[in-house]
Amino acid sequence: MGERLLVIGGVAAGMSAAAKARRVNRDLEIVVYEKSGYVSYGSCGFPYFIKGEIPRIDDVIVRTPEQFAKQGIEVHVHHEVLDIDTVSKWVRVRNLETGEEFTDTWDKLILTTGGAAAKPPIPGLELPGIFTLRTPEDAVAVHSWIEEHRPRQGVIVGGGYIGLEMAEALSAHGIEVTVLEMLPQVMPNLDKDMALLVQEELERQGVRLFLEHRVEAFQGQETVESVVAGGETFPADIVILSVGVKPNVKLAVDAGIALGPTGAVAVDAYQRTNVPNVWAAGDVAEAHHLVTGKPAYIPLGTTANKQGRVAGTNAAGGEAMFAGIVGTAAAKVFDLQVARTGLTEKQAREEGFEVASVSIKSSSRAHYMPGHQPIHVKLVFEKGSHRLLGGQMVGREGVAKRIDVIASALHAGWTTYDLAKLDLSYAPPFAPVWDPILVAANVANK
Amino acid sequence: MGERLLVIGGVAAGMSAAAKARRVNRDLEIVVYEKSGYVSYGSCGFPYFIKGEIPRIDDVIVRTPEQFAKQGIEVHVHHEVLDIDTVSKWVRVRNLETGEEFTDTWDKLILTTGGAAAKPPIPGLELPGIFTLRTPEDAVAVHSWIEEHRPRQGVIVGGGYIGLEMAEALSAHGIEVTVLEMLPQVMPNLDKDMALLVQEELERQGVRLFLEHRVEAFQGQETVESVVAGGETFPADIVILSVGVKPNVKLAVDAGIALGPTGAVAVDAYQRTNVPNVWAAGDVAEAHHLVTGKPAYIPLGTTANKQGRVAGTNAAGGEAMFAGIVGTAAAKVFDLQVARTGLTEKQAREEGFEVASVSIKSSSRAHYMPGHQPIHVKLVFEKGSHRLLGGQMVGREGVAKRIDVIASALHAGWTTYDLAKLDLSYAPPFAPVWDPILVAANVANK
Repeated sequence: MGERLLVIGGVAAGMSAAAKARRVNRDLEIVVYEKSGYVSYGSCGFPYFIKGEIPRIDDVIVRTPEQFAKQGIEVHVHHEVLDIDTVSKWVRVRNLETGEEFTDTWDKLILTTGGAAAKPPIPGLELPGIFTLRTPEDAVAVHSWIEEHRPRQGVIVGGGYIGLEMAEALSAHGIEVTVLEMLPQVMPNLDKDMALLVQEELERQGVRLFLEHRVEAFQGQETVESVVAGGETFPADIVILSVGVKPNVKLAVDAGIALGPTGAVAVDAYQRTNVPNVWAAGDVAEAHHLVTGKPAYIPLGTTANKQGRVAGTNAAGGEAMFAGIVGTAAAKVFDLQVARTGLTEKQAREEGFEVASVSIKSSSRAHYMPGHQPIHVKLVFEKGSHRLLGGQMVGREGVAKRIDVIASALHAGWTTYDLAKLDLSYAPPFAPVWDPILVAANVANK
Repeated sequence: MGERLLVIGGVAAGMSAAAKARRVNRDLEIVVYEKSGYVSYGSCGFPYFIKGEIPRIDDVIVRTPEQFAKQGIEVHVHHEVLDIDTVSKWVRVRNLETGEEFTDTWDKLILTTGGAAAKPPIPGLELPGIFTLRTPEDAVAVHSWIEEHRPRQGVIVGGGYIGLEMAEALSAHGIEVTVLEMLPQVMPNLDKDMALLVQEELERQGVRLFLEHRVEAFQGQETVESVVAGGETFPADIVILSVGVKPNVKLAVDAGIALGPTGAVAVDAYQRTNVPNVWAAGDVAEAHHLVTGKPAYIPLGTTANKQGRVAGTNAAGGEAMFAGIVGTAAAKVFDLQVARTGLTEKQAREEGFEVASVSIKSSSRAHYMPGHQPIHVKLVFEKGSHRLLGGQMVGREGVAKRIDVIASALHAGWTTYDLAKLDLSYAPPFAPVWDPILVAANVANK
C-alpha cells in the first residue's frame, strides 16, 4: 500500500501539488478536499468573465475533478476541512452539501487553503449587491447581479489590480464606475509617479476616482443603494469590495502550524512548515523575497503554481526547492498595460536601502513606425553599488512581458550596469534600437 | 587645442561614437565622413518605407548633419575616405559631389565603415530592376521603381530576415512574390523545425517559396525580366538581392588594420583594433559572442549602437567596455513574430557542444482569453549540465520581446533549471499562468 497524501484546498497550489505528486509517485493515494464547488480554476479570469469576454465560467477551469480522477487523484468539492490533528494524523471534514461530518487520515499533508478577500467591519457590509471576488461562485454572483439588476452605478472599493480590472469589467456593461481608494494613489505596489499614469487612464475612460476616501458605511433598504466615504455619499447599485487578500490560516493556527512575520504560514525552500510531514503552498503561505532576503506575502497564481509543484514533489518523496519571488506582476487597466517587479522606491526605502531611481519615457516601437506608443520605465536601484532593486512600466503595448527582463535581472542580482549590457531584441515593429529598458539603464548609469 | 577625432562612416556605430565622444570630451574636434548622402539612419526601417507604412525616407533619420553640427560634430556626407595612414595619421578623402580629393589629419580614428550587401558574381546582376538594400538611396530606388514600373512579379533572392521583410513589403503593393533560397530552409539562424513555421506563414500569405534554388542568372533586355535558378526560369520585373552582409574592410586591410577569423575587423572589449588610436565598431567589426566565447560576425543595429558608444567613450579619453553579444534578433514576417537568441541546435553542434533541445507549443494569453495565439518555443541546452545555449520563438503575438528573457539567461550563464525558477509576469491578457518560457524550461528539466 502506498502512503496517503491529503491536500486541503484544490485551486492553483493544491491541484499543482496533487498533479505533481502523482507524477513523482505512482503509488501514493492522493485525496483533495475543496470547500468551493470548483477546483483548478484561474481566478484571474473572473473580471474577464464578468466583463463578458469569456462566455462561460467553466472556461476558466483548467481541469475538472473527473479529469483528476483519471490520474488517480480523488477530489471532493464542497468539502471543508474543520480540524487537523498533526500528531495522530487525521482531519475532520464536513460535506457542505449533506452537512455530514467524518474523519480522514493522512501520512503527508499539503495545506493550500488559499486567501480570502479582506472584509473590514463596515456597517452594511451584508447588504445584497456588495461582492468580493475570490471564487467562481463569487464571479457568477456578480455576473448574475448585473444581468438581473442592470445596475447603473457601481462603486469599487479599493484601487488595486482587481479593483481596476473590475472597473473595466463594469464599465463594459455601461455602468458608471466610481473607485474609492483609502490611500493617496491607486495600485499601492507602484510608486506614486507611475500610479499617476494609471489614474490618468481611469479619468480618460470616464471612471471617477476618489483617493484618500475610506469607506464608512454601506447604505440601502433591501439592497445596497449607496456608499459613504470621506463624508460623501456615492450612489451605488453594485459594489465590489477589493481591499486585499488575507491568508486563510485559521486551520493552520489551530493545528499548531507556525505563521511567519507576514501573518501567512511560514515555509522553508522545500515548502515545509514547522510540523513534520506538513507542507504549505500558495496564497496561504509566505514566499522568500529574493530582493529583500525576507519572507513576503504576495499572493499570486504564478507563485501558487510553482510552490504547489515543489510541495507536491517533496510530499511525494522527491526533492524540489522553490527559489523565491521577486514580486513580478502585470495587469491590464482598460487600454493600459501596467507591470512591476522587485521593490518600489517607497518599499526600498522602507527596507532600509539607500535608494536612487530613474524614470524615462521611450517608445514601444521604432519612432518612425505607425502605432508606436509611449512606454514609461522606472528603475529603482541602490545608490553607490547600482544594484537593481525593482522596476515599473506603464504603456499601451509592449509592457506586460517586457518587465520580465527586469525580473530576470533581479534573479541574477544585477546592477544597472549589467542591465545596460543586455543584447535585447530589436525590430522596428517591436522596439526602438535602444530598448526602453536599455534607455533607462543608460540614464541610471550616467 | 583639443585633439582631432575622425569617424569614418556615419550610420549607427559612427554617429553613436561621435555623439558619445562629444558627451565625454567637450574639447575634442570631431569630424565624420560618410559616403552616402545620409547619416544616423535606421536601415531596419527601409522595408516599412518601401511597404508604404512609413511615408517619407526622412522619417527613418534619427538626426541630421545640422543637428550634429549644433553639438559641435562636423559631418560631411558624400565624402569617401580613400586611404588611411596610421603612422603619419592622415586620411585621403574624396568629395563625391565635386570629385575633389584632399587630405585630413587625426589623432584618434574610429572606423565604422559598416557592411555591404553581398553581391555574388551572377550574370545579369547589373540589369536595372535588381536591387540590394543597405542605404537610404537603395530604399528610395526600390520605392521609385515600384512607383514608376508598377511591377507585377517580384523575386526575392535570399530567405533571411531582410528577404522576408521585403516579401511582405512587395506583397503589400500587390506584387506576386517568389522567394528563392539556396539553403533547404528560410532564416538560417533558426533551426529547420522553427523555420518550417515561417515557411507555412509565407505559403498562407501567397508567397511562392523555392528552397535549394541557387540563382544562376538574371535575364532581360533593358530591365530585369526573369531569374534563372535551379534550372527554372522565374519571371520578375523587380528583384531584391538579400543574400547576406559583408564587412567593408578594404580600407582597414589597406591600412594594416587586422581582421579576425570571421573576416571582419578584430576588436577587443574596448573596441580597439591592433593599431594604436584606432577603434572599430558596428557592421565592420566582430563582436565577442558570450555563448561560444569566440568572435562572431552578426551585423545588427543594436550591436552597432552599443559598440559605437564604447568606441566613442574610449577614443574621447573615457573608459568603457563592450560586454559582447548573444545573437538576439527579432523580425516580423507578415503576421508572424520570429525571434531567436544564442545558438541554434545546429550551430551548437557545430561549436562542439553535446546538445539537447525541447520544443513546446503554448499560448500567448491565458487559454480562456479571446485572441490567444499559439507560441512555439524551442530551447537549446547542453546535455548533462543543462546550460542554456539558445532559444527560438515563433508566434503571432508576444514573441519578439519575450525572447529577451532567454537572452538575459544567456548573459547570466544560466541553466534550464535556473530559467524555470523565474518569477515572470502573469495576467490573462498577456500570458498563461505558466509563461511559455517556463513551460519549455519545465519540459527541459523533466
